[in-house]
Amino acid sequence: MGAALGYADRMASWEPDGEPDVAYRAAVVDLLGLLAYGEITAFERLAADARLAPTVMDKASLAQMAVAEFAHFTLVRDHLAGIGADPDVAMAPFVAALDEFHERTAPADWLEGLVKAYVGDGIATDFYREIATHLDPQTRELALSAMTDTGHAQFAVDRVRTAIEVTPSVGGRLALWGRRLVGEALSQAQRVAVERDALAALLVGGVGVGGVDLVELGRMFTRMTEAHTRRMGTLGLSA
Amino acid sequence: MGAALGYADRMASWEPDGEPDVAYRAAVVDLLGLLAYGEITAFERLAADARLAPTVMDKASLAQMAVAEFAHFTLVRDHLAGIGADPDVAMAPFVAALDEFHERTAPADWLEGLVKAYVGDGIATDFYREIATHLDPQTRELALSAMTDTGHAQFAVDRVRTAIEVTPSVGGRLALWGRRLVGEALSQAQRVAVERDALAALLVGGVGVGGVDLVELGRMFTRMTEAHTRRMGTLGLSA
Repeated sequence: MGAALGYADRMASWEPDGEPDVAYRAAVVDLLGLLAYGEITAFERLAADARLAPTVMDKASLAQMAVAEFAHFTLVRDHLAGIGADPDVAMAPFVAALDEFHERTAPADWLEGLVKAYVGDGIATDFYREIATHLDPQTRELALSAMTDTGHAQFAVDRVRTAIEVTPSVGGRLALWGRRLVGEALSQAQRVAVERDALAALLVGGVGVGGVDLVELGRMFTRMTEAHTRRMGTLGLSA
Repeated sequence: MGAALGYADRMASWEPDGEPDVAYRAAVVDLLGLLAYGEITAFERLAADARLAPTVMDKASLAQMAVAEFAHFTLVRDHLAGIGADPDVAMAPFVAALDEFHERTAPADWLEGLVKAYVGDGIATDFYREIATHLDPQTRELALSAMTDTGHAQFAVDRVRTAIEVTPSVGGRLALWGRRLVGEALSQAQRVAVERDALAALLVGGVGVGGVDLVELGRMFTRMTEAHTRRMGTLGLSA
């Protein structure tokens, strides 16, 4: 299936006088709803996890990531409203999966919070990059703006690596934690893919051309897992 | 005592070749430490209280106030660092009072969260305005920038007034809540005034001139309580 259908045609369908591509539009609203709820939830959880910080300055570093997520959320929310979609309605299908992800991965301490912030930021960035290739230019530009690195994740790397140097046993525990994070993320992603067929099809470039290409979807998850493995290495952890 | 001492002289004392006004500088560092910790804590609590919101859009409105507080925090933190003060050290004396205030005033539901956000925002703005009169121009400008209305409190007024129209009995409960908020705030403010004499003196314009003018300090608290009473009226609540 792939992205052979001509996305310029789809962009044209956004024009008032174009033939509306209903399936594509529904999939884009789904995608933006997922991004918006993912971002406001990330804001909320990063702000909450900031309370685990040992110093106010560390707290501020995680809070800064939360604030960047909120800025992304407002971009996507305003875009949804701009194309005539109700943001609350668009987000609703993704509330359960994202809430459950965060409930199952509440950090027990500051270091777990840092690993989650860094790993979560990385997975989100990978996801934005993956989806961007299958979008019309207008939606793609939005996704890439929201992807723009929060630029604050490096402090997490420094803190985690220092902690492992001081107490090497911490590395084993955090490596397990990283595996749990990615496992829960993939589990909820599979759930969303099953429940939202049009969205899943969009992610691999096949919306409106006969359903989801499961092989291509599997490849996307594999690429994201590989990138996660590299990030764990950057933290000084085995994946 | 009052502000008769000539604040231009004090500003001059910030110049490298000026005679350092040690007491004034210590009081300003105290004040900025108080503001900084107040702002990062407000960020944290508003973000947490946003979880009580009935819709994601309501959540976003409170989150927007949190983000504005964080922006104020970064201004003050960077100013502290710029004048050679360690922000963590400057904030430390105020952690207990502000944490205790928030622990004693954790909202039980969304409406209590809204009243707290609106009342808290108002008290902070009053406080910034009160202190600005007694500061050197550089510090005053900072306080006024951080005071700049978060501009997002109006939604709280709308929501609370609507809730009272729908269920008038809510008004009595929220009026009690408002009294508790201002009572706890004054109690912690008194504690800070007792523990940090130089800061208290600065607030009423008497630093370095023989200790705190308790009558003037009392007047300041009275003015702030009066303003609180007016705000409760704006919410449709008896104070």
